Amino acid sequence: MPASVSLLPVTGLAEIRPGDALAEKLLACLQGQAESGDVLVVTHKIVSKAEGRVIDLNSIKPSEWARQWAERWKKDPRQIEVVLRESAGILRMEHGIIISRTRHGLVCANAGVDRSNSPGETVCCLPEDPDASARGLSQRLSQGLGFTLPVLISDSFGRAWRIGIVNVAIGVAAMDPFTDYRGQDDPHGYPLEASIMGSADALCSAAELVMGKTAGVPAALVRGFAWKPDECPSSRSMIRPLDQDFFR
Amino acid sequence: MPASVSLLPVTGLAEIRPGDALAEKLLACLQGQAESGDVLVVTHKIVSKAEGRVIDLNSIKPSEWARQWAERWKKDPRQIEVVLRESAGILRMEHGIIISRTRHGLVCANAGVDRSNSPGETVCCLPEDPDASARGLSQRLSQGLGFTLPVLISDSFGRAWRIGIVNVAIGVAAMDPFTDYRGQDDPHGYPLEASIMGSADALCSAAELVMGKTAGVPAALVRGFAWKPDECPSSRSMIRPLDQDFFR
Repeated sequence: MPASVSLLPVTGLAEIRPGDALAEKLLACLQGQAESGDVLVVTHKIVSKAEGRVIDLNSIKPSEWARQWAERWKKDPRQIEVVLRESAGILRMEHGIIISRTRHGLVCANAGVDRSNSPGETVCCLPEDPDASARGLSQRLSQGLGFTLPVLISDSFGRAWRIGIVNVAIGVAAMDPFTDYRGQDDPHGYPLEASIMGSADALCSAAELVMGKTAGVPAALVRGFAWKPDECPSSRSMIRPLDQDFFR
Repeated sequence: MPASVSLLPVTGLAEIRPGDALAEKLLACLQGQAESGDVLVVTHKIVSKAEGRVIDLNSIKPSEWARQWAERWKKDPRQIEVVLRESAGILRMEHGIIISRTRHGLVCANAGVDRSNSPGETVCCLPEDPDASARGLSQRLSQGLGFTLPVLISDSFGRAWRIGIVNVAIGVAAMDPFTDYRGQDDPHGYPLEASIMGSADALCSAAELVMGKTAGVPAALVRGFAWKPDECPSSRSMIRPLDQDFFR
């Protein structure tokens, strides 16, 4: 009998500020809430904030190029400057939209630089190393809770072909980000050849259903999903190499 | 206090065969299981099967072109022929992989034609009109249950940039497929400009966590998600127009 899966908002977390000990704050909320077998999904925003990846726009001097482009598309030139600095490469830059490849290899709008849920005249950037951030959280939380708690760090990305942003996993710790059905048979005995599910992304998309954008819930527990332990997973493994990307 | 969301596998559904009254079979399972406020996610496979969209490969005479291509990449030429027939356009056709645009406007591998979870020498195609299928199911189930039950029809798609297939909604009935945060403010008072969540896709991705590929669970209830009623939603609205697709 297949089990059900629950998505539980993590409540009681106060606003995170630069330098905050995020793991300790999460641990205090999760004591009595988290159970063995759960996965924790954390929006990158609170990780970035705790790690000081919040940039005061008043400290930014935009380049001439950023200024011109921002003026043309009625954007804040300081924010454009941060987006350009955070981009390892630019895929598109038109109609006021910048699609970047980040240093992590992620393809997303504005290199993940975001003004929403960031206080005052600041923008929030992606964590420097989301896997390391996830690992740090998972290790401390697992130690404090007495069982392994995998951690996924999520962000909302736009997609090719489809409208609407969905959450994906930009950092992963303690679990295999995929469910690999290859080598298994379907109920009719036919081998499942091309079936690698992006489970980490699906878990992050699921968690969004209880986090929302305005509810101020930056973390959620997923209970009942049979994740596979992996001591050293990498979010890089979720990035499709360009020469195998037939879906663009 | 934000609510939790539950993903509940729908159990007790026997193998679906062409001509089966799917709504009646689902209704029998959902009586006593479904609650007001739930969303039903159904994998397209059982919809396609009930609607007779299963093709016996022995009835297919491949074209010379399908034969040559299949031989080169060691594929079943009859299956390639079906894929070509189901494609409104071909985006890529290399290394044995066909990425098609279907008549529904969906971009996916093999036009959604799939051999897994299809009996014997048959392949399963996408429903002719997944929104109509979803609407038919939603209407009958809502009538039988005494409350509105939105229905999403899901399929697993590969994606640009990222590895691992995830579920998306190819058909929708009775609910808005998006959660539109535009015009709302984040907790800091900053307006959320570009935030339209692909909720229908997220719900289908979430449902996959309890459906799996080998467990034989072709439907799931999502409980606790605050969907917005929409009498006439369209899965076409989820397809990004090419001239606005900066993510490819």
